[in-house]
Amino acid sequence: MGVVLGPNQYGKAEIRLVAVRRDGDTHTVDDLTVGTALWGDLADTHLTGDNAKVLATDTQKNTVFAFAKQAPVGEIEDFALRLARHFTSTQEAITGARVAVDRHSWTRIEGNGHSFTRAGDEKRTTAVTVEGSRAWVVSGLRDLVVLKTAGSEFHGFPRDRYTTLAETTDRVLATSVTAWWRYQGRGIEWGESFRRVREILLRAFAVKHSLSLQQTLYAMGEAVLLERPEVAEVRLSMPNRHHFEVDLSPFGLSNDNEVFHAADRPYGLIEGSVLRDDAEDAGSAWRALPTH
Amino acid sequence: MGVVLGPNQYGKAEIRLVAVRRDGDTHTVDDLTVGTALWGDLADTHLTGDNAKVLATDTQKNTVFAFAKQAPVGEIEDFALRLARHFTSTQEAITGARVAVDRHSWTRIEGNGHSFTRAGDEKRTTAVTVEGSRAWVVSGLRDLVVLKTAGSEFHGFPRDRYTTLAETTDRVLATSVTAWWRYQGRGIEWGESFRRVREILLRAFAVKHSLSLQQTLYAMGEAVLLERPEVAEVRLSMPNRHHFEVDLSPFGLSNDNEVFHAADRPYGLIEGSVLRDDAEDAGSAWRALPTH
Amino acid sequence: MGVVLGPNQYGKAEIRLVAVRRDGDTHTVDDLTVGTALWGDLADTHLTGDNAKVLATDTQKNTVFAFAKQAPVGEIEDFALRLARHFTSTQEAITGARVAVDRHSWTRIEGNGHSFTRAGDEKRTTAVTVEGSRAWVVSGLRDLVVLKTAGSEFHGFPRDRYTTLAETTDRVLATSVTAWWRYQGRGIEWGESFRRVREILLRAFAVKHSLSLQQTLYAMGEAVLLERPEVAEVRLSMPNRHHFEVDLSPFGLSNDNEVFHAADRPYGLIEGSVLRDDAEDAGSAWRALPTH
Amino acid sequence: MGVVLGPNQYGKAEIRLVAVRRDGDTHTVDDLTVGTALWGDLADTHLTGDNAKVLATDTQKNTVFAFAKQAPVGEIEDFALRLARHFTSTQEAITGARVAVDRHSWTRIEGNGHSFTRAGDEKRTTAVTVEGSRAWVVSGLRDLVVLKTAGSEFHGFPRDRYTTLAETTDRVLATSVTAWWRYQGRGIEWGESFRRVREILLRAFAVKHSLSLQQTLYAMGEAVLLERPEVAEVRLSMPNRHHFEVDLSPFGLSNDNEVFHAADRPYGLIEGSVLRDDAEDAGSAWRALPTH
Repeated sequence: MGVVLGPNQYGKAEIRLVAVRRDGDTHTVDDLTVGTALWGDLADTHLTGDNAKVLATDTQKNTVFAFAKQAPVGEIEDFALRLARHFTSTQEAITGARVAVDRHSWTRIEGNGHSFTRAGDEKRTTAVTVEGSRAWVVSGLRDLVVLKTAGSEFHGFPRDRYTTLAETTDRVLATSVTAWWRYQGRGIEWGESFRRVREILLRAFAVKHSLSLQQTLYAMGEAVLLERPEVAEVRLSMPNRHHFEVDLSPFGLSNDNEVFHAADRPYGLIEGSVLRDDAEDAGSAWRALPTH
Repeated sequence: MGVVLGPNQYGKAEIRLVAVRRDGDTHTVDDLTVGTALWGDLADTHLTGDNAKVLATDTQKNTVFAFAKQAPVGEIEDFALRLARHFTSTQEAITGARVAVDRHSWTRIEGNGHSFTRAGDEKRTTAVTVEGSRAWVVSGLRDLVVLKTAGSEFHGFPRDRYTTLAETTDRVLATSVTAWWRYQGRGIEWGESFRRVREILLRAFAVKHSLSLQQTLYAMGEAVLLERPEVAEVRLSMPNRHHFEVDLSPFGLSNDNEVFHAADRPYGLIEGSVLRDDAEDAGSAWRALPTH
Repeated sequence: MGVVLGPNQYGKAEIRLVAVRRDGDTHTVDDLTVGTALWGDLADTHLTGDNAKVLATDTQKNTVFAFAKQAPVGEIEDFALRLARHFTSTQEAITGARVAVDRHSWTRIEGNGHSFTRAGDEKRTTAVTVEGSRAWVVSGLRDLVVLKTAGSEFHGFPRDRYTTLAETTDRVLATSVTAWWRYQGRGIEWGESFRRVREILLRAFAVKHSLSLQQTLYAMGEAVLLERPEVAEVRLSMPNRHHFEVDLSPFGLSNDNEVFHAADRPYGLIEGSVLRDDAEDAGSAWRALPTH
Repeated sequence: MGVVLGPNQYGKAEIRLVAVRRDGDTHTVDDLTVGTALWGDLADTHLTGDNAKVLATDTQKNTVFAFAKQAPVGEIEDFALRLARHFTSTQEAITGARVAVDRHSWTRIEGNGHSFTRAGDEKRTTAVTVEGSRAWVVSGLRDLVVLKTAGSEFHGFPRDRYTTLAETTDRVLATSVTAWWRYQGRGIEWGESFRRVREILLRAFAVKHSLSLQQTLYAMGEAVLLERPEVAEVRLSMPNRHHFEVDLSPFGLSNDNEVFHAADRPYGLIEGSVLRDDAEDAGSAWRALPTH
């Protein structure tokens, strides 16, 4: 029996970069959280502590800040690709790089070119993987919280010894959407694609009459694939944020789906992927991302 | 020497109430976090465990849910007043009640009457105090995150042995505003007043050329008082979310207020109040709220 | 009517200071989170942006780090007093200072002088106030989570229209204790006092047969006052972390106080103070601390 | 082109179960957070909303509570195995189940059989996977925060255009360990194995002279494999919680590794696995767990 080093990676997480561009009195803010991860010929540092092939995570951080100066950030996918290619092309030992970027949104305060309010907690995100001359882009969004007060049922599920849940043909359905979609092909307009995918996800959530959160999840992914040829696969993770109807009968009151307790824990968690049957091979696109 | 019971209160915190109203296919959501606190003749339970005067916190929670059924929630100030008056008027031992309500916002998904997205983390809030026939209303907002990329300076501060901070005539200024304002007078339109106060705060933040965050804070409070006669006093707590210019000179790059590291901790914390010189007496309005 | 500046303060929050002392191979770690707040003649910066009296919060932070070098940190109360007196004595405009310190605990890994594990989330804390030649010390602890599985009842509470809670003579009682105690007198051994007060609080929680969380709270405060003459007053905030007995009867199972759902929200919140009837005047001890 | 359903699973997350066992006056608390996930023949609910094969997540939750009554919880691995086997053996459509359990620790208050303090934030954890007659157990721990003030160097790393980090032969090294280890073989004593693995991890962290956090990580994993034959593989994720030496020279003070700023973000993140070269095949052990 021997002991061997298995898969590994290292990098800098949660680099908080804010870049300001000025066009006269009209300013633009790029507010990003960036994470880097590198892998390759890294046995030495693990086995002997020889760091000759270990680009310091401090250097990775510096590189992120410097790149934001050397050219406008632009789309987060392009920014991540530039960084990932830099790391793999300049460090011989590094055979792969993942750069993940979250974009935080700001809304301009009316009538003022340089003042902003933070536009919620939802993040646009990307995770780019580069290995040699290959590159994969998985983009997504997080913390998109949605709720519908009609058009949701849940019934017909099996009843065993431990089943007490009542069947319902009218419930409140709420979730915080985490969506990842994998791109294929070339020449993609990242910003336009993001906005359209987000719209499609929202519309499908709103319009699809839901018999289960799984059905809603599938409908959301399917709608994206049917309308956006640049997307090969969609992965969704959707916690069921339960809204329990409060029993008001002890107080002589009815409750016809009007008053709810919004519970924190536990919560249902529905996770699934929808993909084209002729999708490009995923390669390393999902490395260290959700894989079920 | 003897040991005596000092000030005390008890209640139910973080009741997560969602109420849905339906006008045909157009639904409206009241998403609230409610907290109650009661005080009065409560020595018995502390000294002997006799609970004859202790309205259970579970009952307080039930009351909140039931009230949301018995009449539309409406403005959070009115909802809180109804609840606080209920507790003090029905429980002889209870001489005072505080009901605090946070409202979470939802935005309707276009073209759909019953589907919504969560509109960020900012909360509209109120803290209502009732003692006997008197009532005080303090309303506010929390987690309103704002940033300006021009119009902010900081210089002229004293330099002692421990001072290293450079003076600047151009910095990024960002903060997460917590604002409380105390109402006076009668017949206030709570919703309208809230929207106007919020607008005034935002406009003052954006427009005021800032020589210190304290000056910005004062300008925000003053603007509210000058325009809204129903407000007696404004209290603001504004953490200075530091954006540090990254030193890019080691990489042969300039940084003319373009690339920043957004730091988490530590942060400056600026707190202050602005009030009318003829404001109504605050009475119990600020009980157990920020008081410096 | 005019608009005037009310109470205000400013400072640096959440300074994360770690100081290492070395006695040969045996090292000691002081891991602190420090916050400073100053007040005084600060109208200028609010009204005109003149910062001549505004010791920068960056300078306050530097001072904290420098003081940790100039002398061993020692007890957090002494460290906070040194800092607060420095600010008020060196800045003419500053008439008052609050320095708050949390101490995070580390446990030495057995048989090794310089390796440690973090000892939980409980914090020892102090909030020191200095105004001119006067000083007040309020010390405490936070996040001391305790639970008892016997010796807790709750019954005899009033039943109104909204009451559904069953009476119980045997419940699980759990809370996360936040305790503040105000010192009086001189020559106090801060560390010894802290350890003894903490022991007394724990013992009273464990031993006192509880008919209400209020009774437990009072017993805890009273026990401290009876045994520790250096303490003038104790303030306690104790959320009731509800453990709900799960109804297993649908599955043909009994549940004799055996299986519980530990709920997050809402929770009861019990707050109160216990003090000596001849306690020294509190002065500014509680400024901007819990005051109900 | 067609759209197809890819990998998916669903379950109940964060079930907060507290079970109390009583042996006379001596009580024992099992405080667990349980998550379930099921997969199998679930196309119907995704495609048509037919839920005939969807055991409700509410039922899964009920099952967890009921099982805690039907037999003592015991070791979390056994509890998880019982639950996972129940789901796969009673639901024909369900071909696989993951049950994950975190155990939260409580320490008995001295001299009292039924009162406890919460013992920190560290969690013992397990993730059990059952597919048909096969089962895999991955156990671990989270939030084990450690620090060493000697025996850590970092130098010899490449210096490119963006490198500014100074080399050091003496730094503070701190991390929050997340460890997962995969078991092989039979008849494992879970509790004893956990305690021994934890001890080995801590000792290796403390004793290993570190030239890089990667070297420390490898040494920790290797030590477990060398001493514990029941472990096939260890995966570690170790954020580098940077402690930056504060520059005190502007104040005329030296800083010989004495005063540090403990930074939050960004942080280095070191992740890697160490395994036997003859380890049993991992099968589905790591499904939806960290996989890099």
